[in-house]
Amino acid sequence: MKVALLAHEKFPTRAKTALGVLRYGTDDVVAVLDRDNAGTTVSEFVPDVQEAPIVAGMDNLEADAVDALYIGISPIGGEFDESWRDDVRTALEDGCDVISGLHYFLSEDDEFASLAAANDCELWDVRKPDNDLAVADGVAGDVDADVILTVGTDCSVGKMTTTMELARDAREAGYDAAVVPTGQTGIMIEGWGNPIDRVVADFAAGAVEEMVTEIGDEYDYLFVEGQGSIAHPAYSGVTCSILHGAMPDKLVLCHRAGQEVIHGYESFALPPLPTYIDLYEQLAAPVCNAEVVAGALNTSDLDSDDAAADAVDAYGDTLGIPTTDVIRFETDHVLENLL
Amino acid sequence: MKVALLAHEKFPTRAKTALGVLRYGTDDVVAVLDRDNAGTTVSEFVPDVQEAPIVAGMDNLEADAVDALYIGISPIGGEFDESWRDDVRTALEDGCDVISGLHYFLSEDDEFASLAAANDCELWDVRKPDNDLAVADGVAGDVDADVILTVGTDCSVGKMTTTMELARDAREAGYDAAVVPTGQTGIMIEGWGNPIDRVVADFAAGAVEEMVTEIGDEYDYLFVEGQGSIAHPAYSGVTCSILHGAMPDKLVLCHRAGQEVIHGYESFALPPLPTYIDLYEQLAAPVCNAEVVAGALNTSDLDSDDAAADAVDAYGDTLGIPTTDVIRFETDHVLENLL
Repeated sequence: MKVALLAHEKFPTRAKTALGVLRYGTDDVVAVLDRDNAGTTVSEFVPDVQEAPIVAGMDNLEADAVDALYIGISPIGGEFDESWRDDVRTALEDGCDVISGLHYFLSEDDEFASLAAANDCELWDVRKPDNDLAVADGVAGDVDADVILTVGTDCSVGKMTTTMELARDAREAGYDAAVVPTGQTGIMIEGWGNPIDRVVADFAAGAVEEMVTEIGDEYDYLFVEGQGSIAHPAYSGVTCSILHGAMPDKLVLCHRAGQEVIHGYESFALPPLPTYIDLYEQLAAPVCNAEVVAGALNTSDLDSDDAAADAVDAYGDTLGIPTTDVIRFETDHVLENLL
Repeated sequence: MKVALLAHEKFPTRAKTALGVLRYGTDDVVAVLDRDNAGTTVSEFVPDVQEAPIVAGMDNLEADAVDALYIGISPIGGEFDESWRDDVRTALEDGCDVISGLHYFLSEDDEFASLAAANDCELWDVRKPDNDLAVADGVAGDVDADVILTVGTDCSVGKMTTTMELARDAREAGYDAAVVPTGQTGIMIEGWGNPIDRVVADFAAGAVEEMVTEIGDEYDYLFVEGQGSIAHPAYSGVTCSILHGAMPDKLVLCHRAGQEVIHGYESFALPPLPTYIDLYEQLAAPVCNAEVVAGALNTSDLDSDDAAADAVDAYGDTLGIPTTDVIRFETDHVLENLL
């Protein structure tokens, strides 16, 4: 599929979804829309992802140049920025689907809904859960695939990136692996998935189970994208639902180097790292035998590779398992423990 | 408030909500509607609750006899039974509010919505969450009240009943105690509350926190109604959200005598009872210091009081804390550990 990624004024550092699609997606990115950087290209900002021109808006593309427009940014609050309306309108008039991870549902916007109907194209709000979700049956453990889940010491420590990198490296090494996406960016990269944090609490585990059982007999390995942290004052319920809904065999503990308190909840100290292993394994135990067998450290705050390598080594020594930074270093020794 | 309780063909054993309102509610129950038992009274079936006549329908009551009609039963699936329509219609025509815990929302039924508007009365669907819920801030621990949460080895082991009984006994002993209801029956008994299992997963802890902080400075003790179980394959996320959202000081572990597997998920064995104590306390620890200090055993499956007393003693020996059956026996020694 040929796609355009809307990332006005935010590319690349504040355009997590656009960057994720460029890095991990299988779609052909025809252009990134960023009016602040029109005339440049993606590789001028990010060297190791798919190359694409950056243009000012949909008007700069031929009418049949793309099949879909992705809203590749998600501002705090998830609101729709009216300065994007022309691009979405043009896309729909050109017959493009529009895919969005915003809290603001494009499918409930009167103008967009009318245009989509008139031009026979789809408005997909990935944060809008399916209406047919149900309570978990406790059967995710029955699938043929080995299920590997990323878990974290906090939100935003790299669970999505770790999931995507490990799955890609596993596939490149010849393993039959797929990703089970549970959040908006993962869903937009993979083109399917349930946004677990938006699901009614009773159905959260069921929404994960539905995905695992849907594809679990078609692959040898599933990498399930985790959310939140079991130690998080607000989001631990989502984490717990994914842990029990996915019934994983193996866990990868993700952490940000140097972080000592819950982000945004600074009065809550992170428990010691080995405590996380105990918490995740013991909480899983009544439902499934899941073991933390690898660690992923996010060293993006460390400038030097030497300091990053030292931090990864120290993380591994503390946990007693193989560790890496999936962006900065190799993943071979970590995958050995997972596959 | 004068209320009628709809419980057609289900009173008393399959009318959990009606029985809860009769037993714990502060409303004056004018009548129970049960066409199968019309002409009898509540005390012929249940000795130790509020007395009321049982009638065939709303037509048997004077137009100004009641202020509100409660739907006091909740069939599997939570559907509305069309044989109840005449009663709801009559209630609304008489200007009564109607309060329902069904999945089927009466406020979205065209006839009922029109009648409620025309007669200026309220349709309250207690399973419909507020639209203004938000993410937890991690501040429930700051309230003046000591927060006591009931937790369980499974669903339907007596957490709601334990919460209500302990709060009532505490108040009768002179303590300033209130209930924080989190499920449909508790909400209907107390007349307020958030149905946590119906809340979007991201806001589940926040919905508990909102309730605890709303009344937590007005009382010395809050008894928070727990839901599900941390070991449940489907509902553990709800349990975890309540544990971290309420930030309790003390926990009461509820269990059904003799139960060995998760109800409806019989391939999942309950962990050993002391493991539950470890699980709940260790999972709470990153967010709050909560200790399991008492146990409540549901002995309703045991016929003899002697066998029940033995089971309660054995439960206490296993856990190493004071235990009781809150319906069958005294709660004094348990309350001593809580207040």
